[in-house]
Amino acid sequence: MPYRVIGDWGTSRLRLFRVEYDCIVARRVGPGIGTVGSEAEAAFAQTIAPWVADGPPQDIALCGMVGARDGWVEAPYATCPADRDIWRSAAVRFDWNGAPLAIMAGLACIGDDDIPDVMRGEEAQIFGAIALDPALGRGRHLIILPGTHSKWALVDDGRIVNFRTVPTGELFALLRDRSTLGPKDATGDAGQESAGFDEGLARAGDGRPLTSLFAARSMRLRAGRSADWALGYLSGLLIGGEIVETRALLSGGDGVTLVGDAGLADRYARALDAQGVAARRLDGDACALAGLGFTGEIAA
Amino acid sequence: MPYRVIGDWGTSRLRLFRVEYDCIVARRVGPGIGTVGSEAEAAFAQTIAPWVADGPPQDIALCGMVGARDGWVEAPYATCPADRDIWRSAAVRFDWNGAPLAIMAGLACIGDDDIPDVMRGEEAQIFGAIALDPALGRGRHLIILPGTHSKWALVDDGRIVNFRTVPTGELFALLRDRSTLGPKDATGDAGQESAGFDEGLARAGDGRPLTSLFAARSMRLRAGRSADWALGYLSGLLIGGEIVETRALLSGGDGVTLVGDAGLADRYARALDAQGVAARRLDGDACALAGLGFTGEIAA
Repeated sequence: MPYRVIGDWGTSRLRLFRVEYDCIVARRVGPGIGTVGSEAEAAFAQTIAPWVADGPPQDIALCGMVGARDGWVEAPYATCPADRDIWRSAAVRFDWNGAPLAIMAGLACIGDDDIPDVMRGEEAQIFGAIALDPALGRGRHLIILPGTHSKWALVDDGRIVNFRTVPTGELFALLRDRSTLGPKDATGDAGQESAGFDEGLARAGDGRPLTSLFAARSMRLRAGRSADWALGYLSGLLIGGEIVETRALLSGGDGVTLVGDAGLADRYARALDAQGVAARRLDGDACALAGLGFTGEIAA
Repeated sequence: MPYRVIGDWGTSRLRLFRVEYDCIVARRVGPGIGTVGSEAEAAFAQTIAPWVADGPPQDIALCGMVGARDGWVEAPYATCPADRDIWRSAAVRFDWNGAPLAIMAGLACIGDDDIPDVMRGEEAQIFGAIALDPALGRGRHLIILPGTHSKWALVDDGRIVNFRTVPTGELFALLRDRSTLGPKDATGDAGQESAGFDEGLARAGDGRPLTSLFAARSMRLRAGRSADWALGYLSGLLIGGEIVETRALLSGGDGVTLVGDAGLADRYARALDAQGVAARRLDGDACALAGLGFTGEIAA
């Protein structure tokens, strides 16, 4: 049975998908590229081994940090503005045990404020989103990929013209787990957390995220708020602040699309709604696969 | 020889000063109130022991987190607007082994944006600054105490009318030591660090601290900046951002005064200068002692 392999090899996880006749029939998971050091090829060989026992795949395409300087084989950054063809042609290609293997390029840009930026892996999701929703390929759109390092991309007629990274998820985790502001005694009260999130969103509208941080603590000491409230407040303040700042930076167009896992996309949708912006939603996994050329049936 | 004891018992350190005839003749250091748990009195007794061997002091005054809920004895918060007399009269006083002991109050306020705030210990420095520089007791002044949790206080005719905490130092330490943005390979190149600091300050003027953070990494990847530059950039971005936001929040008056240790005050003076604000400087230790009633000679 002829088959192809597509995969996303990020810092913390390798995910491989086996495609037969436009259908994903199997998947395998391996270690992140950030953990394998100089043993990247061995880790890849071990993860894919049960499949190549049937013979080599027709081809292999991998996106993500696998192409970083300290990944497996360094792939360049394609430069914005870039459409999907430009991005695909910038991949590094070589023969791997009889199969043509492509390590996809990253993407680089320089913002209107002269700050350069980079991504590796998210561009596959963005081009995948455009493939899944052809309306995104016409006109001007903001595509948001929330996460540890959120990416905001401005897409114009199918080309990524500019983007910005905001390390909101990383900042939230640091404040929650390692700061004097993150409550250590949260109980998981979703109602309190939600009320705090809304209050953080409202505060974010002031555009003063640094001077609003300490309220996570002072509102507990002086205004009777709970630990769960404080967690929600920090999340709302940071996500709301990310949105306020990024919308000022990237002039959007016909709409905003959220790409990612459901829980986080929910928070962003709520935060965008609080600023009067309705967002479309697309599944992050489906977009990643579509970016690597797969738009068929996901059977496994 | 009759003597008095004044001290600052903060989270991480207890500092005691022995005063004889308006002269500091000795000092002792003990564990922070954050580390002694329920053994606060024993830790205090042990630190002061060599002095009380001569007999009890005439009186003892302690400021700082010693008066927090989980300190030694809880002292209230005096409410802004508060002058020094209001603050002093809010202290908790009791007899300790034959000596009258005062644990000074903290200070609480509610900002114009309805965010409450608190301090414990810094108010002694602020009232001390006013005692050392009588010009600060007339008219309207901003007094800044840079640190892990920076405090900005608006003083009007000697009363603290409002203040705001900004956890800039804590945020910087988290980003430097625990984030993917903090370079792990800085070499201590002061010129590079200084250039990064200035670039961070300039960027802070955009008022978008969250979307400017990732440049600490992307400028290294794409614009040839060094690890030392990145450390300076993060510091300049956060300190500059603190100043931009806080000046928008607290309408200053006749001048800005920096109270604190020389190195950090230098950075803040440079950041204020970049925004066209000249700052006076006062020594943090001298202000703390003056706030506790001591303005004499520091001989030890």
